[in-house]
Amino acid sequence: MNDTQRITGVLSPVVTPFKTDLSPDPERFVRQCRWLLSQNVGLAVFGTNSEANSLSVEEKVDLLDRLVAAGIDPTRMMPGTGHCALPDSVRLTAHAVKLGCGGVLMLPPFYYKGVSDDGLFRNFAEIIERVGESRLRVYLYHIPPVAQVPITLGLVERLLRAYPTQTAGMKDSGGDWKNTRAFLDAFAKSGFDVFPGAETFLLQGMRHGGAGCISATANVNPAAIARLFDTWQSADADAQQAHLDEIRAIFAKFPMIPALKAAVAHYGGDAEWAIVRPPLVALAAEQSKALVAQLDAARFTMPGLRA
Amino acid sequence: MNDTQRITGVLSPVVTPFKTDLSPDPERFVRQCRWLLSQNVGLAVFGTNSEANSLSVEEKVDLLDRLVAAGIDPTRMMPGTGHCALPDSVRLTAHAVKLGCGGVLMLPPFYYKGVSDDGLFRNFAEIIERVGESRLRVYLYHIPPVAQVPITLGLVERLLRAYPTQTAGMKDSGGDWKNTRAFLDAFAKSGFDVFPGAETFLLQGMRHGGAGCISATANVNPAAIARLFDTWQSADADAQQAHLDEIRAIFAKFPMIPALKAAVAHYGGDAEWAIVRPPLVALAAEQSKALVAQLDAARFTMPGLRA
Repeated sequence: MNDTQRITGVLSPVVTPFKTDLSPDPERFVRQCRWLLSQNVGLAVFGTNSEANSLSVEEKVDLLDRLVAAGIDPTRMMPGTGHCALPDSVRLTAHAVKLGCGGVLMLPPFYYKGVSDDGLFRNFAEIIERVGESRLRVYLYHIPPVAQVPITLGLVERLLRAYPTQTAGMKDSGGDWKNTRAFLDAFAKSGFDVFPGAETFLLQGMRHGGAGCISATANVNPAAIARLFDTWQSADADAQQAHLDEIRAIFAKFPMIPALKAAVAHYGGDAEWAIVRPPLVALAAEQSKALVAQLDAARFTMPGLRA
Repeated sequence: MNDTQRITGVLSPVVTPFKTDLSPDPERFVRQCRWLLSQNVGLAVFGTNSEANSLSVEEKVDLLDRLVAAGIDPTRMMPGTGHCALPDSVRLTAHAVKLGCGGVLMLPPFYYKGVSDDGLFRNFAEIIERVGESRLRVYLYHIPPVAQVPITLGLVERLLRAYPTQTAGMKDSGGDWKNTRAFLDAFAKSGFDVFPGAETFLLQGMRHGGAGCISATANVNPAAIARLFDTWQSADADAQQAHLDEIRAIFAKFPMIPALKAAVAHYGGDAEWAIVRPPLVALAAEQSKALVAQLDAARFTMPGLRA
């Protein structure tokens, strides 16, 4: 891959649709990805908000194949491929590279806690070595509130030194601007792309060399977030950021993944979208109503979503 | 399964041997399981200390097949089969039942944090329904320091009500006697078997209706732990407990899994046993030396381990 084609901008950890029997629904998934691309948002499929860790590796391989078979541009995809088990990470990463994905977003192995940077370095190094592809672009996924296993400055430094071609960037979902800023200051100039993990830090990020953002709410508010990325140097950038924050704050009052799916179900006129896999539970009817009422009051829409 | 054959006693979350290429080593695994059975310890293969979450489902299916093919009694096995993804849990659980395993030890899905008991109930209920076997015996795995997702009294109550046949017991690795005691008091009399997650609470557990224990250090000190289970009503029970605690305290000074493997490597005369998968790292040479020195000073041995 030519590095002038590096993924930048706004990406969505695409919510994964399930049928009533809880199996993934490839048709709805393809439609949703097409809609997001039409809104100028890239596809970080199999992220935290995709319920990716509730999917088997086989299911992820199959869904990725379906997207590519449907003609969706793999260079706009940054699938999550980091698992607890090394062979799972290697398998899905190799498959993503083979399909031509623009990058992969990699969780550290997240079951064992308190592991050392040596162990994490060994994990990522083994994946990169076993995949053995110079066109692999790895984005490290820092999400300590969920994974509990952090990506440190020292780990990035070691990976950049050992695998300068493959170590492409990171997503910082820690929710701590000081941490994001530290990574931007340390690495952004050397071509290591830092994506804040929410649009909350999109403008601040862009002002300090950020590459865009990868955000849950890009599932529901894609065009507005993408517009701020495109126009962050314009006079109304702060006003745009304030409006993005307002919409996000509404979603943040509810369990995020069920709320995203409830919004897609409501504004897309497709009730089945509300289904989540255990251990998550869908919003109760009164929660969905409250969510929609608040979104309507904020003049929120999802243009073009309804089939 | 006849419930008079319920698994009780001491079980070991059997450490999983890896070759130098980090692939699982079925031959060493079979030998280790045979040795543990010879020491009167059952096989909770694919536990936390087995690096189970660093193994793919395929690898676990294959290792289980290898044990049974080698003639090892499946009724002495309680493989860990709980994964983050529902289809993975269903697949390995169904396979274990098909092979005749005495029970399965089930982690809750552990990626998403702060999930509700409703969501966890749904997870276990879906697994039990999809496996659809009356001989399935599920042991719930409470290990909040690692999984971060707890098993509550209320969840057990709901599962017992909905699936009285399959809801067989639990392992409590929380390290908090008050919690173990609460589960024993609430459920032990109704035939729900509570296994403390370390021999530290073996004697206390037996005095309050416990079923034995499932402990990391049963990998290295099996006979002595099993003897306390067999003789817990004898006059020297407290002295036995004190000696078990002394040995465990030595291991607890080191990262547990690498230390267990270092001991098996040293006392078994088989250096390759020290290999761990990332994100873990093996003990450094000086750590292994310190561990062995302290174990030798405590007159620790692993009789019959050396081939």
